[in-house]
Amino acid sequence: MPTTPIPVSTTIADLRLRVRTWRSEGRRIGLVPTMGALHAGHTSLVRIAQETCDRVVTSIFVNPTQFAPSEDFSTYPRTFEDDVAQLARADCHLVWAPTAQEMYPEGFATHVAPEGAARGLESDFRPHFFGGVATVCTKLFQQVTPDIAVFGEKDFQQLAVIRQVVHDLDMPLAIVGAPTVRETDGLAMSSRNRYLSAEERRTAPAMHEVVTDVAARVQSGEPIDTACAEAARRLADAGFHKIDYIAVRDARTLGPFDRGRGPGRVLAAAWLGKTRLIDNVPIES
Amino acid sequence: MPTTPIPVSTTIADLRLRVRTWRSEGRRIGLVPTMGALHAGHTSLVRIAQETCDRVVTSIFVNPTQFAPSEDFSTYPRTFEDDVAQLARADCHLVWAPTAQEMYPEGFATHVAPEGAARGLESDFRPHFFGGVATVCTKLFQQVTPDIAVFGEKDFQQLAVIRQVVHDLDMPLAIVGAPTVRETDGLAMSSRNRYLSAEERRTAPAMHEVVTDVAARVQSGEPIDTACAEAARRLADAGFHKIDYIAVRDARTLGPFDRGRGPGRVLAAAWLGKTRLIDNVPIES
Repeated sequence: MPTTPIPVSTTIADLRLRVRTWRSEGRRIGLVPTMGALHAGHTSLVRIAQETCDRVVTSIFVNPTQFAPSEDFSTYPRTFEDDVAQLARADCHLVWAPTAQEMYPEGFATHVAPEGAARGLESDFRPHFFGGVATVCTKLFQQVTPDIAVFGEKDFQQLAVIRQVVHDLDMPLAIVGAPTVRETDGLAMSSRNRYLSAEERRTAPAMHEVVTDVAARVQSGEPIDTACAEAARRLADAGFHKIDYIAVRDARTLGPFDRGRGPGRVLAAAWLGKTRLIDNVPIES
Repeated sequence: MPTTPIPVSTTIADLRLRVRTWRSEGRRIGLVPTMGALHAGHTSLVRIAQETCDRVVTSIFVNPTQFAPSEDFSTYPRTFEDDVAQLARADCHLVWAPTAQEMYPEGFATHVAPEGAARGLESDFRPHFFGGVATVCTKLFQQVTPDIAVFGEKDFQQLAVIRQVVHDLDMPLAIVGAPTVRETDGLAMSSRNRYLSAEERRTAPAMHEVVTDVAARVQSGEPIDTACAEAARRLADAGFHKIDYIAVRDARTLGPFDRGRGPGRVLAAAWLGKTRLIDNVPIES
């Protein structure tokens, strides 16, 4: 069955015009921010937005400011035609695909700087990451003015940071977190999984196995440090050659986890060859 | 003639409810951000907002984060009852007066950091000032969601920084600059003028005289450095004991002024006893 073509906005002026029309019709609008290279995890976010919104905008923008010079900005997968086709099949209503020039015109000089949930974990290894994410998401929210924005739990700290930024700056939208979509062997779907060799791909599910194991051990009363040390050993044995962190944190603040004071989260980041994988799972309180 | 009482919102929830009602009625909304201690300069901003808006909100919030510990946060004039009465007479529709707790609840950890127009001048002497201003104004814009916000040209660099932040972050509102309101002897109206002793008050108009003189000299071709040096000498002779800066800048970017490439601005800040006065005037291109 042929799908209806989906409009693509590339300028803020065009985007605002479309959103204004929807507003005048009383539509409720959802935003799904992405960097493209879409997979089933992304389309699940579109479906979740559709549950409560009449119109869903998916943004596709590979944001240069959240990559360090040493990182994979230039090689990040760009599959725009395929992305648009997937979004059309998912009945998304609009693709918002600004150019870098539209997003960061000459003279751009304002940054949104999150602390709190942004401290530690990813920030210890990617110090510019959350500043870049917070700034571009603030811009996306101001551009699209959605009622909700949906983010995957796969990037759990990012979700916590975005919630904090929206709360701290009183932005008039709700942030919705969506469960991580996994391959059948447990590997969290990620645009970066396509970097993996066949052998690395066979090793990759160990990441999900160990964080799940840490969650079970901590929940059954084992000390956090013992569980994380064992997990690090298992990841190294499996073939991960550099472990950035395996940590247990308070799920809401990402501060220290305190048993019996709300849910926790196990979060991990480690390298398999040239690919950095992250994953996380809940610890029920 | 008795004036109609004006409603005062002190919580974001109450504010949003009132704004939502106006939006549903199709009203155009203007915001006048203030720190209270209102004078005729502030009520002129309300009048300017009324020219294009159906509903005008004036916020009154003495923002602690834009004061350094050494500055006058604790002694800044607070005249809330009188402010509300003035706003009622000015036919303002709502006073938005959040508490510090409502504005910065526990755990607040996100800042808006402006560079560009925020560099130099005031920042050289009040390094935290524009970060505090940009963050609180971003919050006010997200809370009130106005169509326009009106700021006085008296704080000229602040106006430029706010324009830049709104432009850079794509906030869906227009920033309107309003002419400085002056006493009959030329002194720019300011809430801090009430700090001046009778003798200082007689000296204070020298500030406006010298910036006006610099503008005339630069416009007639005199070198900027010569004009500013002469102005500094005249201020010191008049009784100003510390001159923070007297500068000529590009009126839009606040970068270096380049004759024939758009309008310039003369900006000055200097101390009279314990009171810091600022002023600025245009140089036509």
